[in-house]
Amino acid sequence: MGGENALQALTAWLGEDMKACNQVIMDRMASSVPLIPQVGAYLVSAGGKRLRPLLTLAAARLCGYGGKPGEDRHVRLAACVEFIHTATLLHDDVVDESLLRRGHASANALFGNQASVLVGDFLFSRSFQLMTTDGSLAVMGILANASATIAEGEVLQMTTQNDLSTPVDKYLEVIHGKTAALFAAACRVGVVAASGTPVQEQALERFGEGLGMAFQLVDDALDYVAEQETLGKTVGDDFREGKITLPVLTAWERGTEEDRAFWRRVIERQGAGADATNLDEAAQKRDLHHAMKLIKQTGSIEATLDKARTYADQALAALAQFPESELKSLLAQTLTYTVNRAR
Amino acid sequence: MGGENALQALTAWLGEDMKACNQVIMDRMASSVPLIPQVGAYLVSAGGKRLRPLLTLAAARLCGYGGKPGEDRHVRLAACVEFIHTATLLHDDVVDESLLRRGHASANALFGNQASVLVGDFLFSRSFQLMTTDGSLAVMGILANASATIAEGEVLQMTTQNDLSTPVDKYLEVIHGKTAALFAAACRVGVVAASGTPVQEQALERFGEGLGMAFQLVDDALDYVAEQETLGKTVGDDFREGKITLPVLTAWERGTEEDRAFWRRVIERQGAGADATNLDEAAQKRDLHHAMKLIKQTGSIEATLDKARTYADQALAALAQFPESELKSLLAQTLTYTVNRAR
Repeated sequence: MGGENALQALTAWLGEDMKACNQVIMDRMASSVPLIPQVGAYLVSAGGKRLRPLLTLAAARLCGYGGKPGEDRHVRLAACVEFIHTATLLHDDVVDESLLRRGHASANALFGNQASVLVGDFLFSRSFQLMTTDGSLAVMGILANASATIAEGEVLQMTTQNDLSTPVDKYLEVIHGKTAALFAAACRVGVVAASGTPVQEQALERFGEGLGMAFQLVDDALDYVAEQETLGKTVGDDFREGKITLPVLTAWERGTEEDRAFWRRVIERQGAGADATNLDEAAQKRDLHHAMKLIKQTGSIEATLDKARTYADQALAALAQFPESELKSLLAQTLTYTVNRAR
Repeated sequence: MGGENALQALTAWLGEDMKACNQVIMDRMASSVPLIPQVGAYLVSAGGKRLRPLLTLAAARLCGYGGKPGEDRHVRLAACVEFIHTATLLHDDVVDESLLRRGHASANALFGNQASVLVGDFLFSRSFQLMTTDGSLAVMGILANASATIAEGEVLQMTTQNDLSTPVDKYLEVIHGKTAALFAAACRVGVVAASGTPVQEQALERFGEGLGMAFQLVDDALDYVAEQETLGKTVGDDFREGKITLPVLTAWERGTEEDRAFWRRVIERQGAGADATNLDEAAQKRDLHHAMKLIKQTGSIEATLDKARTYADQALAALAQFPESELKSLLAQTLTYTVNRAR
């Protein structure tokens, strides 16, 4: 059901809109300062899934907007959403000191921290400029709120780093902030573009929120699933950074005293100032493999995916508002794909 | 004339408004994530001159707005301007790796780069949230444009770093972006808050722009004026970073072949990867003192201050639109103070 191609199918269904959205992104990346479009072109060619702008476009279309002459608000707002997302990615990479992003060199590895911080700021500003030309205060409010929530989520994540006593609720608040809030906002502004009803707005916001939570939970599970090394993201990134995620919290909770001693050593060591980079590579690999073994042994991947499925079910229920259609079915399949990509 | 107290006098004249503005800043810094108000409180207590929000308040008052019940738009917009400024300061410190700001430990020295990037993003988002509650698309446009211009200016500055062949025009574009754009926007949104005329908007925008250019030129001069060590900013910061400023460009242009060899060695060395931190402290001090000597010898401080005075004159001319008043006179004196603080 759904399967690996749901996202591609959704992208294809929205092909014309996505093409127009990519054009807006390229046009608005322009600047008299050459480094800005250079970093921009690199980010565009590094090519993410563009999941967030897809949600804006899909939400607008589901509410009957798009395809008629002059109906391009959803395209512009999808570009706004992608700019905000790209800005946060650039800043995340600085914060995480990541060298890889989706299997490519990250922008900060290639252009340096300075450029990443500043081009992120530029894209963020561009997004609000573009919203101004759209002219809807409702959209501004939704996306400004989402941006603030993202930053809060990231700061909260920072303060939970290396801390095994983090409650699961706090972890869920982190992923709501860093991921689900923008998914929800992306859907909601699509409805606003379509002048949809408040009920539609609320329903698709809940859809985006559930999808975002499921997406991040699966992402966090994938960091400990070896077979996924080909997916672009480096396995073990979260582990090396001492990031607190549900697989770790579950393995910690379900672990023996010996296991807990291991987790304390590997997750809390960065907090103590002796970070993983001080270990030789072989020792790091051994630790990662032991962590993966414990996570598997304690059923922590399954527990994380179960949680993801709960959110996916909530998202699916939110779609019930809408009459059956090919697009609605593609959105439902995207949910299934999201929770199944860890298999 | 004007003298050292002009800025304090302006701040006093706008005392009630500034108090209300500080309250909005404190209220809006609130977040369920404790680190955010912590960084915020630190920034507020580190206490800048709050020049930019003062400009918004003064512009609104000059257009007859403020003081009557319910007239608080200018206060809210002044807080928006200060949030944008604070966000860029936080990001600048990351970019510059500054340890000192206004003589205090910078936020990134105290809280780390991660917190600086993310709290900066938060404040930026808060600013747009606050604009949304104000509800003026004109204000959104002005401040979104200013934000994009600031980021462009900072990126441009980055690309001119260590490059002695930077044309003066490009340097002026940098300081327009990084400083004058927000001064201009701060004034302009004050006029919008007051529902001023387009002529008033343009006049006060020009005033802010001229003041901002003069302000940054003087700041760049002060980095090479030893007697200013007490002012908070560390003398020689720009020098150590290989920042291209008018004093350096002038001294380079007017220098002998021997002088130029010196400038190449000290300004371009960071670009070659061998940054100043590799030199011992004594050698660094010797280089800075030699740079200051050459800058003095070639009249480069005077040349920079002359340029600042030209912009200050333009700013003064823009005030001619407005009838004589105590506030207008205080703004004129602030200009004088700005260009004279280097003496």
